[in-house]
Amino acid sequence: MKCSVDLEAREIEELYINIDPIQAGGRLTIDAMKAIIAYGDGYSVCDNCRKPFRLDYIKKPPVDAFHRDLAHFLHMDVARVVAGARRGFQTVTGTYVQNGDPVLLTSLSHYTEFLSVEAQGGIPLEIPKNSDNLITGDATAEKIETVTREYGRSPSLVFIDHFDYQYGNEHAVRDVIRVAHQYDSMVLYNGAYTVGILPVDGKGLEADFVVGSGHKSMAAPAPSGVLATTHEHATEVFRTTRAKGDTTNRTFGIKEIEMMGCTLMGVTLVGMMASFPSVKERVKHWERELANARIVVDALRSIEGTKILSEYPRKHTLTRVDTSQSFDLVAQKHKKRGFFFTSALRDRGIVGLIPGATKVWKFNTYGLTRRQVEYLVKVFRDIARENAIPISG
Amino acid sequence: MKCSVDLEAREIEELYINIDPIQAGGRLTIDAMKAIIAYGDGYSVCDNCRKPFRLDYIKKPPVDAFHRDLAHFLHMDVARVVAGARRGFQTVTGTYVQNGDPVLLTSLSHYTEFLSVEAQGGIPLEIPKNSDNLITGDATAEKIETVTREYGRSPSLVFIDHFDYQYGNEHAVRDVIRVAHQYDSMVLYNGAYTVGILPVDGKGLEADFVVGSGHKSMAAPAPSGVLATTHEHATEVFRTTRAKGDTTNRTFGIKEIEMMGCTLMGVTLVGMMASFPSVKERVKHWERELANARIVVDALRSIEGTKILSEYPRKHTLTRVDTSQSFDLVAQKHKKRGFFFTSALRDRGIVGLIPGATKVWKFNTYGLTRRQVEYLVKVFRDIARENAIPISG
Repeated sequence: MKCSVDLEAREIEELYINIDPIQAGGRLTIDAMKAIIAYGDGYSVCDNCRKPFRLDYIKKPPVDAFHRDLAHFLHMDVARVVAGARRGFQTVTGTYVQNGDPVLLTSLSHYTEFLSVEAQGGIPLEIPKNSDNLITGDATAEKIETVTREYGRSPSLVFIDHFDYQYGNEHAVRDVIRVAHQYDSMVLYNGAYTVGILPVDGKGLEADFVVGSGHKSMAAPAPSGVLATTHEHATEVFRTTRAKGDTTNRTFGIKEIEMMGCTLMGVTLVGMMASFPSVKERVKHWERELANARIVVDALRSIEGTKILSEYPRKHTLTRVDTSQSFDLVAQKHKKRGFFFTSALRDRGIVGLIPGATKVWKFNTYGLTRRQVEYLVKVFRDIARENAIPISG
Repeated sequence: MKCSVDLEAREIEELYINIDPIQAGGRLTIDAMKAIIAYGDGYSVCDNCRKPFRLDYIKKPPVDAFHRDLAHFLHMDVARVVAGARRGFQTVTGTYVQNGDPVLLTSLSHYTEFLSVEAQGGIPLEIPKNSDNLITGDATAEKIETVTREYGRSPSLVFIDHFDYQYGNEHAVRDVIRVAHQYDSMVLYNGAYTVGILPVDGKGLEADFVVGSGHKSMAAPAPSGVLATTHEHATEVFRTTRAKGDTTNRTFGIKEIEMMGCTLMGVTLVGMMASFPSVKERVKHWERELANARIVVDALRSIEGTKILSEYPRKHTLTRVDTSQSFDLVAQKHKKRGFFFTSALRDRGIVGLIPGATKVWKFNTYGLTRRQVEYLVKVFRDIARENAIPISG
C-alpha cells in the first residue's frame, strides 16, 4: 500500500507485535490519530493565535491549559513543549553552559546529552556506573570532587537518566540529585523513558529540570517533548527576548529566546494533547506493564544460555538480553546464519529487533496486552525448542 | 466534532476558504495526509534505521534519497531537514556567531532571525528598508560599512528574506548577496515564503545557506523545514561530534552537533516527503498563483479608500492592505463595530483575518482555485457595496 509514489505505507503496528526498544511508548492513541488527521496542516493550531502571540497562550485549541496540565502532571511549576527531549537538553545547556564548563552526565547517558553540552563548548564528563550498571549517589559525589579539583569549580549542571536507554536500569535519581545539590550543581532529570509511562514527581525528587520525550514515551508524533522546571529557573531558561531593531526600534514581545519563539505549531502538539488524558491514566498502571515485562524476561531466562544483562528483577519494560550462548550458537550453524532468529520472529508476527541480532539485543514490552505477552513468550520458547536449545522449568 | 475530550476537530480547511497569511503554503497535500496517517506513531521512520544510525541514511522509507532530492531542488550541495526554519537559522548562528559579533538582518526580518542571533550573544543589526519597503544592495553596503567601522570587523553573517513576512515584497537578494560577499560576509537566504512555492536557485544566487519552512511553504506538518548549503560550509554547520566519554571512552559516530543528532523522526518528515512530488511540480506554476493574487489585489484597489501597502504590481501571493479609509470607516458606525468585516467574511465562508481587523491586515491567496478567487473578489465587493463604499471600474 502506498501513500505516494515513493512512499510505502507503514503497517508495522497493524500487522505485527512490535517490541522495538524505542518505539513502544510513542505509539499513538486512537485520539491522537484522530487529532493528527484533523490538525495535519502546517500551522494548524494557530487559527486563534492572539496577542501576545505565543504558543502557550493559545486558548483554542486549549494549548494554554495543556501547558499548565503538563507542569502539574510532572509536579513542576512551568512547562514548555519542545521538539524532542534533545531540544529540552539544549535549552538548559544553552542557558547555563559556557565554553569550557565541566558538565556531568553518566556512563549510560544518551548521546544527545553529550551533543547538547558539546554544542555549547562545555566538557561532558561521565559519572561511572558500578559493576551492576547502576549510577549511584556516591559515584556522583566522587566524580564531582574529582571534577572540582581539576576544573577549579563544581559542574553547574548534572544530567541523570532515571532509566537509561542501554539497560533500562533504574538509577539512584534521588541520591544523585541530593548529592549534586550539596555541590550547588543543578540537575536535569532525563525522563525520556519515564515521563508518560510511569509517575514522575519532579518537585518530590527536587529536580531542577524534568525533560520528557513525546515520541518516545508520551504517545505523540515526532519530534515532540517537554521541558519542565521551577519558577526560579523558568525566568532563566525561558527568558524572553531583549532584542530591539537598531533601525526600526522594533521589539519582539515575550518570545522566549531558547524556544526560538514557538516550538510545536501543529500536528506534533495536538498529538501530545490528544494522547494526554490516556497518558495521565496509563502511568497509574505501570505495575501491570512491569508484570508483563517480567513474564517475558523470565521466559527468556528459562532458555538455556540466555542472560538478562539488565538489572533483575526488572523495574522497566525495556530490557537488554545476551543470547550469545543460546540463539547465537544456533546462528553459527543455521543456513540463514544470524538472520534465522529475527526471521523466525517475523514469520510469527514479532518485529522490532535489528535484523540479524542474535548476540546482545534490546526489547520493550510496553503497551502489549497480556495475550500478546503470552504469545511472545510462546514464540521465544518455540524458536528455542525448534532449534534444540534446552528450556528449564 | 471532537478528536478527544478537550479537543475539537479543526475543520477550517474543509468548511472555509482560508486566506490566512501564514497558513496557505502549509496545507497538506492528499498524499501527505495519507502519509501522516500511516506514519503517525513517534519513531515511525526508524523501523529500518541501520548503521551509521543517522536519519539521512535511512533507506526505507527513502529518507536518504529525499535529502539528496531536497539539496538538488534548491540547487545546493547538501540539505538537512530541521524542526522549522528557525532551527535552520539557529544551526547557522550556532556555528558562526560568537558573543558580541555583529550580524546583519533587515528591517523586515522575522523575529526568529533576531532570536537565533540573540541566543548566541550576537548583535542583530538591521539593514534599513527604503521608502518602498524594499531592501537593496546599496543599503546593505552602507550598513556593512557602518557596522565595520563600529565593530572593527565586518559581520560574519547576513540574513536576507527573499520575500518578507510583513509585505510579501521581493527584495534584491542577488544584489545583497553580491555586496555581502564583497565584504566576506556569508549570506543566509531565508526562503520561508519561497522554498516550496516558487523556484529557488541557491547556487545561482550564490547563497551560502538556504532555509525553508515545511509548515509555511512545503505542504508539511509542523515543525519542519530545511537547511541547505554548499559542500564547503556543510563541513562546518553539519560538523559531527567529537565528544568522547571520559570514563567509557565511548564515541558517537557521525551524529551532527547542531542537529542534536536526528531531527524529524516521524510524521513531520514523511509529511514533507509525501508532499514533495507535488511541491516540485507546484513551484512551476507560480505565475498562475501570482495571477490569482493580482485579481484579488485589483478588486481590493477598486474599493474606494483601500490601499495596497505591499509593492505593486504584486510579486507574491501574500499582501498587506490598508482599509482604514474604506472598511474601517464603516466599522466606526456599524453595530458590530470592528467585527463587522471579519464577521461578514466568515458568514460568506472566508476566514484567515484576525477577528476585528479593519485597518491594516494581510492575506494570502496561495493555493486557491480561480473559482475561489473569483468568489473572494465578489465577497469583498459585496461587503463594500452593502456598506455603501463606492467601487470603481
